[in-house]
Amino acid sequence: MKIQDLQQATVVGLGLLGGSLGLAISRHFPHVKRIGYSHRAVTRNKAADIGAVDEIADNLAQAVQGSQLIILASPIGVFPDLMTAMGPHLDAHCLVTDVGSTKMLPVRWARKYLNKNIQFIGSHPMAGSEQRGVDFARADLFDDAYCILTPTPRTSPSHLQCLRQFWQTLRMRLSTMAPAQHDRVLARISHLPHALAAALVCASDPDEMLLCGKGFLDTTRIASGPVSVWRDILMTNAQHTAKAIARLTRQLDKLQTALENDNPDAVVKILSQAKEKRDDLVAKKLLRQDLPT
Amino acid sequence: MKIQDLQQATVVGLGLLGGSLGLAISRHFPHVKRIGYSHRAVTRNKAADIGAVDEIADNLAQAVQGSQLIILASPIGVFPDLMTAMGPHLDAHCLVTDVGSTKMLPVRWARKYLNKNIQFIGSHPMAGSEQRGVDFARADLFDDAYCILTPTPRTSPSHLQCLRQFWQTLRMRLSTMAPAQHDRVLARISHLPHALAAALVCASDPDEMLLCGKGFLDTTRIASGPVSVWRDILMTNAQHTAKAIARLTRQLDKLQTALENDNPDAVVKILSQAKEKRDDLVAKKLLRQDLPT
Repeated sequence: MKIQDLQQATVVGLGLLGGSLGLAISRHFPHVKRIGYSHRAVTRNKAADIGAVDEIADNLAQAVQGSQLIILASPIGVFPDLMTAMGPHLDAHCLVTDVGSTKMLPVRWARKYLNKNIQFIGSHPMAGSEQRGVDFARADLFDDAYCILTPTPRTSPSHLQCLRQFWQTLRMRLSTMAPAQHDRVLARISHLPHALAAALVCASDPDEMLLCGKGFLDTTRIASGPVSVWRDILMTNAQHTAKAIARLTRQLDKLQTALENDNPDAVVKILSQAKEKRDDLVAKKLLRQDLPT
Repeated sequence: MKIQDLQQATVVGLGLLGGSLGLAISRHFPHVKRIGYSHRAVTRNKAADIGAVDEIADNLAQAVQGSQLIILASPIGVFPDLMTAMGPHLDAHCLVTDVGSTKMLPVRWARKYLNKNIQFIGSHPMAGSEQRGVDFARADLFDDAYCILTPTPRTSPSHLQCLRQFWQTLRMRLSTMAPAQHDRVLARISHLPHALAAALVCASDPDEMLLCGKGFLDTTRIASGPVSVWRDILMTNAQHTAKAIARLTRQLDKLQTALENDNPDAVVKILSQAKEKRDDLVAKKLLRQDLPT
């Protein structure tokens, strides 16, 4: 499959990501026909109203027929059902991808629920916002953000190349890794901070928190994220996230011991290393112009 | 002592907090003579240039003589030296306070290094910014922020009342607690988040961090704070902070176990509790108009 052959694309799930995807496809692939599907009628209507897609399909079979590219933008938990339902209706050479935050399970599910000849390649466009729903969809949501692709040894090079070109045309910066590596890295840089923020709030007293300042609020901001989304993310990446928590706990134990032993040198060592590494991170991100504005 | 008797105030240490204090006193107590002291000549000159104080003293003895109010705004680690040096030169009925982030040690030091008849009451104005130094001093730094006062059974009610009126006139919102309670609460809502942010960065791989998003950056922001300031805070509140870390670690262990056991109900329980508590916190803070803008 070549990107030039892309005539019709299907977006399954029309929330913030799916809706934005439809708008971005319209902007960057104006000749491509966009079919949308959502299991909720109200979402289907809203998506049609804002022009997120050209056509709304009433069912999944109808939605995927004739599309060269199918993008799953639903909550990850429903992927097995979607794959089972769409499987028999997919075009033989089509490319199926998704926008989920974990990648091992979607890839495993695709192997289990889709026909062997169907190419599924996981994508993780790292774009989004605190807002949810198609009402907040934006054509520029993906601009300059990172997108991680997770091919496997079974991935066809031409399909991978096509998927790369698709996201690049949507102005994303690409990175490629194996599904397991993706999930391990994301557990550490994304799922662990979320687990941490939630644990910190759970360990805090409501009256005491009222006195808190900007530091506490920033550190815990992501704990206000949607529970169902984060349940899916953590449960589909449970073992890696558990390991990441254990790794952090060891670091916290070190700091706790240094404090209990009244050891300023050990405390300074940890604080200095943290400041140096984070300052370096911010400097590099500024240089790459990938800090959120 | 009564607030009406305040004719001269001394600010020891002319950084962001000390300089801002001088400017705020000038705004809200225009008749009060402000004396400033810093051990660094360059800071003394800068403070004079921006009008942070009316007069700069060359030494501590000269700085405190004739003042009814002395405010220590230096790094907490030098308080014992400052108290020892200023002790013999303090007016008998003066009030000494500070702006440090921990309160048990300053109160203990005051008992040890100041004359018995001198009233020391700890203050913790919870104002500041990432910026450091007198260059960033602002007369409105304290507006609407919380200030915790930590009287003890030895505190004279009239001096406490005077100190309350002083900070209230500087537009601060007051809260009162014992020094030990202050340090326990602050360990949980301020020093723990800092320890956590530092531990998270230390546990992270530099290359992996480059892929991180806004969540990781927010969660770790305070790890970029000045090492010397945070060393002093953590070391002067080491035992409470160690206990707060242990409390958090227990919560993290719970989440880790839930993930290892593939237990979505337990994970949802933690995520829901965290979201509910934090959303409630933000709502209450919005209502009290004390969210940073």
